[in-house]
Order: sequence, then structure tokens, then C-alpha cells
Amino acid sequence: MATKSSGKMKKPKTNIKSRDTVTSKEIAARIKKSAEAMVKEIKAHKDPSFTTQQRGKSNVVWDEKKGYLGLGDKRITRNFLNVAHARKFMQTSLIMAKTQDYLLHNKTASIREIYYELKHTIEGTKENTFEGQDESDPTIVDLEHSVNTIREKLNLHANPKGTLYGNITLKDKMHNNDKFNASKLGRGGWSIMSRIEPEEIEIIESDAEYLLVVETEAMFERLIEEGFPKANKCLLIGVGGQAARGARRLIHRVHTELELPTYVFTDGDPYGWYIYSVIKQGSMALAAHSEFMSIPKAQYIGMTLDDVKTYKLENVTEQMKDGDIKRAKEMMAYPWFQNKAWQAQLQKALKEKIRIEQQALANRRLDFVATHYLPEKIRNKDFLP
Amino acid sequence: MATKSSGKMKKPKTNIKSRDTVTSKEIAARIKKSAEAMVKEIKAHKDPSFTTQQRGKSNVVWDEKKGYLGLGDKRITRNFLNVAHARKFMQTSLIMAKTQDYLLHNKTASIREIYYELKHTIEGTKENTFEGQDESDPTIVDLEHSVNTIREKLNLHANPKGTLYGNITLKDKMHNNDKFNASKLGRGGWSIMSRIEPEEIEIIESDAEYLLVVETEAMFERLIEEGFPKANKCLLIGVGGQAARGARRLIHRVHTELELPTYVFTDGDPYGWYIYSVIKQGSMALAAHSEFMSIPKAQYIGMTLDDVKTYKLENVTEQMKDGDIKRAKEMMAYPWFQNKAWQAQLQKALKEKIRIEQQALANRRLDFVATHYLPEKIRNKDFLP
Repeated sequence: MATKSSGKMKKPKTNIKSRDTVTSKEIAARIKKSAEAMVKEIKAHKDPSFTTQQRGKSNVVWDEKKGYLGLGDKRITRNFLNVAHARKFMQTSLIMAKTQDYLLHNKTASIREIYYELKHTIEGTKENTFEGQDESDPTIVDLEHSVNTIREKLNLHANPKGTLYGNITLKDKMHNNDKFNASKLGRGGWSIMSRIEPEEIEIIESDAEYLLVVETEAMFERLIEEGFPKANKCLLIGVGGQAARGARRLIHRVHTELELPTYVFTDGDPYGWYIYSVIKQGSMALAAHSEFMSIPKAQYIGMTLDDVKTYKLENVTEQMKDGDIKRAKEMMAYPWFQNKAWQAQLQKALKEKIRIEQQALANRRLDFVATHYLPEKIRNKDFLP
Repeated sequence: MATKSSGKMKKPKTNIKSRDTVTSKEIAARIKKSAEAMVKEIKAHKDPSFTTQQRGKSNVVWDEKKGYLGLGDKRITRNFLNVAHARKFMQTSLIMAKTQDYLLHNKTASIREIYYELKHTIEGTKENTFEGQDESDPTIVDLEHSVNTIREKLNLHANPKGTLYGNITLKDKMHNNDKFNASKLGRGGWSIMSRIEPEEIEIIESDAEYLLVVETEAMFERLIEEGFPKANKCLLIGVGGQAARGARRLIHRVHTELELPTYVFTDGDPYGWYIYSVIKQGSMALAAHSEFMSIPKAQYIGMTLDDVKTYKLENVTEQMKDGDIKRAKEMMAYPWFQNKAWQAQLQKALKEKIRIEQQALANRRLDFVATHYLPEKIRNKDFLP
């Protein structure tokens, strides 16, 4: 944990140069370049092609050095003059044209909206451009991987979820340059948008010493009611289950730009631990995007099954469900869980078949989590890796 | 729609006297009174009893005059010296004692926390006070109905959900008297708390001319991106599906205290229409609480199945699922859907078996909903009752 003189406002690091600081103009240029290559092929009477990264488990690599999941080098190419590819090729071209249009006109859209916006019957045929969102979504993923970015930088997004609270000032450059402090919005906190890109949302400053990511919105509210963030100089982000992309981007940016230690607090069960691992090391489905979203230095603060005995919670454990048991077995085999502490935790789960929720700490007293549990864990550096 | 001189700030009505303005002290006193009656019975060597309202369909009444669902007069009494009631009686006493404790000490808890806080093995037995939350939740409902209030006023709450945006200033009296304006938090908006009670959250002022409740968070974001609330002087509340209790309380209070016309905008399908009816007339499950949550004067702005033709959306309808069809049939029989417009709408749904989503308006253009659809509907008063 960083120890700083109290009250010091920290400004974000601004010298970060990475795929993250690319501008929307640059992304639009990449799409244009890819489209121009197609046009060139067509003019030369060649079969136009589109190349993207291969996804799926067979091309996911565990990058131990970087500490997150990534994609390997396998690529796939689609050709227009291939009956099996032609429809997909048409769809990719539509998505390319539309997202470039969004980028050039500062518009954003949800992945459901772009599906609806592009759906139509092709003139002179009975063929629809897209039959369902299950056709447009993979095309968007193709494009993200092809131009080496994330959908947020194509001005696309999924649904928002998650809440921010604490002494941090943000600025929304696309909305009158609103500046607001997330500790001054009552106890509700700021509703995290679906897209949190540096071109739009700027981190101004914060005096927080660490960031605490909380699985359940109810625990998030508990910690605010107890005045925990102020007393402990920390920021809270409530993710409400598996973290949405906007919340992951904000966690990533707060951790990176403000250089804040990041602790994750979930239920003590395989699902909660998996939520932690996605925040820390990324997921297989979004392996190519770990650089934008993962936090390899994140630490796990709880709940652990050892907490049950330590904090006398024997009376309030629950039985693990079949899904939890299956997940625990899968997780034991993941390379990023190959360390003594997590193997012991997973083995314990499989042996005792119990789980323990964050809110079960209320069995000691409502404020126990804020007055004892979290402060002790942080003081003793009692984390899982 | 109210027509007001532009820029005029409206202060909330404060002379509303109802069950809503009861203080936590009064509620605590009601619990005490009920407990004292039990003690008196015990001291007189009588069988102590607890009385509450009967719930469930058989005691739900459609109050046409008030325009919302209510509970009838049927009551049930539980006695301690009855083997079938004894356990439940013990649980009710525990919940009464604990919620009174919360009220007297300004603590709040989620319904999951109070379950965990009260769960223990009764000394000298192997009996647990509660085996699961499915035992404590109904006990909480018993108490709400017995002392004639809602759980929020027992300082209990479920999970938060929903977002507020627009030119309205709120004050959180339990959090440094924070004052914040929900149009100045960037495009994220304010995350609506699980409890929005007048003792804690005060509505200061607003210049809005109406409130628009939006089913999906994605449409909520779309309208903000288009600058719709500012251009049309309205407030937005995104409910994210079926509205959570906190969101319903806030909608109710904004509508009542600021006297704002309230329009509801959902997907055009039986599920969306049901969301509307719960906001307007209440639900059978919470029939006793309609006074706190319902908005009998709310109007439905869309989507309707007539919109499909009017706005040329034939290409982007979806098939209704079996669940939608079943729900539509049920809804046709509800007394509060007995009017020409809704019967026609439901019949059309059952005949054409199609549904139309809010986001399908993107098929016309992303900003169509903000530049044409909603303004036209409001200008022409093209609402369903």
C-alpha cells in the first residue's frame, strides 16, 4: 500500500504512450487503409480479402511476463469470392463503413443500435444484411481485432453497469467539460458510463491511497454508509457481479494513471474468485484486450475460506452449487491460478464444498467489515496474489 | 404537458401529508407498541399474537378511484402457542427488535444483511433462527404490512438499480448535506440509491417540464448523447428493466413533489408494457405499497405496435416469445388494462406475434428517437392511457 502524506492530491500520469492513447482519427485512418486495400484488390480484378486475428481458446496465450492473457499470432483471412465467406465479408464492410462514420462524426452507439441501424433488405433480393445481433456482434469483434483496438475506440459499447464513489475528480470533455467529484454526490455515487475512454473522460485528481473494487452493490452501499472510503482514503468501485467493460476500463485507468494499489473484494466462492481473475489477468474471450483492461498487480483481499474460521463465520456459510464445483475444477487448471495460495483455496473449496458471501460479515455486526475486516487485512497485507 | 415559462426553477411541494411523511421515530414507536402488546399478553398468561395484512391475489383489490392496486381488509393473526406458528413468531420478534434498533441508531441494512446479522443457532438447541433468506424476507414483509409502512421506512432495502439525469438538484441529508445537480455529472448521471426516503434525500429544485422514464440503460445513454433532456427540458430516469424499489420511489417523488407529467418509454412488447403498468398502477406483490410507489397519472409514450407502420420499422420487428404471449393473455384480463387502447394493443400483439424494441428506432437513424419520435409523440399527445 502506498503511504503518502495525508491530503495530497495526486494528478494522473500523462506520459503513458500505448495502444490506449490512440485517437479516434487514427482508428478511422486504420479502417480507411483496410478498406482502400480492398478497393485496390477489386480494381486489380483480384479477390478482395479481410484479415483478422484468430480467436478462441486455441489462440489464447498466458503471458506470464506481462501477467495477463493475450492472443497468439494465428490470423484468419476472409475472401469475398468464397461462398462460405461472402455474407460475412459484406457484413464486415457494412460495420467498417458505419463505425468510421461514427468516429468521424463523434457519434457513439450500442452494439444493439448498430445492428438495428444496419439491418435492411438488400435491394433486389430477399436477403437481409443481418438476421440478428448474433451476426453483427462477431463482425464487430473481427474489426476490433483487425485494426488492433477495442470496440470502445470504434465508438461502440455494450450496456453500462457499475458505480464509482470517493474523492476523485473526473471531467467529461464531451459534456460541457463537467467536472465532478465522486465523493460529493450523496451516497449514490457516479453511474459509470459504458465507455470510459481518455478522449472523453479525463481523470483530474484524487487523494486516494488505494482503490477497492467491490463485487456486490449492497456491500458498496454498506462501505459508504460506514464512511469507509473517507476514513481510509480510498476509492470504491462497485461492479455488481462480473465487471462490465466500462467499469473494467475505469479500474484499469485509475490503477494505471493514478498508480493506485488495487484490491478486489468479492464473495468467497469460485464465481467471485473468477471475477477477480478477469479484473486482474483478463478473460479468454477478450484475450486481445488485456492491455486495455487487466491489472496484473491487483491483489485479492477476500473473502477467503480461511476467513470462515478467522472471523468466526461458521454459522453463515452456504453450500456450493454444482456450477461452483465445476468452475473450481476448471480454475485449478488455469496457468494463472498456478500458485500455492490459490491452489490451496480451490482445494479447500472442493473439499469443504462451502462458500462465504461478503455480506455474511454482517453476522459479526453490520460495521464489522469496515471497522475490522478490511482494515486488518490491509494493515497485515493479508492478500492472495 | 405543463407549459411553463422557460428557465423557471420549480421547488417541490412540501405540504404533502400522507403515510409517506412519517418519521423513523414514529415507525419505531409503532414497532414498540406492537411488542408491548405481546409482552402484556405474556404477563397476563395469554398466548401472545401478531397481526398483519393478508397478502396474495385473494386480497388484492383494483382501486379504480385511486387508480392503483391495493390490499383488501383481510388480516391474519399468528400465535406463539401454536406449533405451526411458533417458529415464524420467533422470527418476527427478531426482525422487529433489529429493525427498531436500526431506526433508533440511524443504521440501514440490505435484506440480505439483516438475514445474516440475525442468523444464529439458538442456545441449547440445534435450531437456527433462519435457515435462509427465504425465511427472513417474508417476515420483513409481514412487519411492513403490520405497521402499515414500506421496508424503506424500516431502514431496509434491496439492491440499487437505475440512473437519474437532468436539471434537478438533490440533497443527501445523511452525507454532509451534499447538493448535486444531475445534469452536471458528465453523461454518466447519478446512480439511484436503494432507498430514496424524504428523511434522507431532499428534492431541492428543477426546471424540468416532464419526467421521461426509460426502460433500457442503452436508450438512456442515447438520449443523453443527443442532448435530448436539455433541448426538451426534461428529466430522465433509466430503470434497466423492471424498476427497482429505489427507482420507483424516486419516480413517485419527482412526479408528486414537483408535479411533473410522467411519460414511460419501454420496448413494444408485453414485458415492456408490464413494466409501465407496475410504475403506473403498482404490482400485485406490492399492492399494499402502491400509495408510495405508483403514479396513476403516468402516460405511455411507446413503443406501440402501431409505431411499426407509422415509423416504417417493418424490417426490424422481432418474433414474440412464448413467455410474451402468455403474459399478453394474462394482461388482457387485468382490470387495469380494461380500456380500448390497451385491449387493441394486446390483441394486435397476439395476432401479429411481433415485438418492437426501443433501439429498433436506430434503423431510421441513431438520433431519430430524439429528433422525431419522442418530440412528435409529445407534441401530438400521442399517448396510451
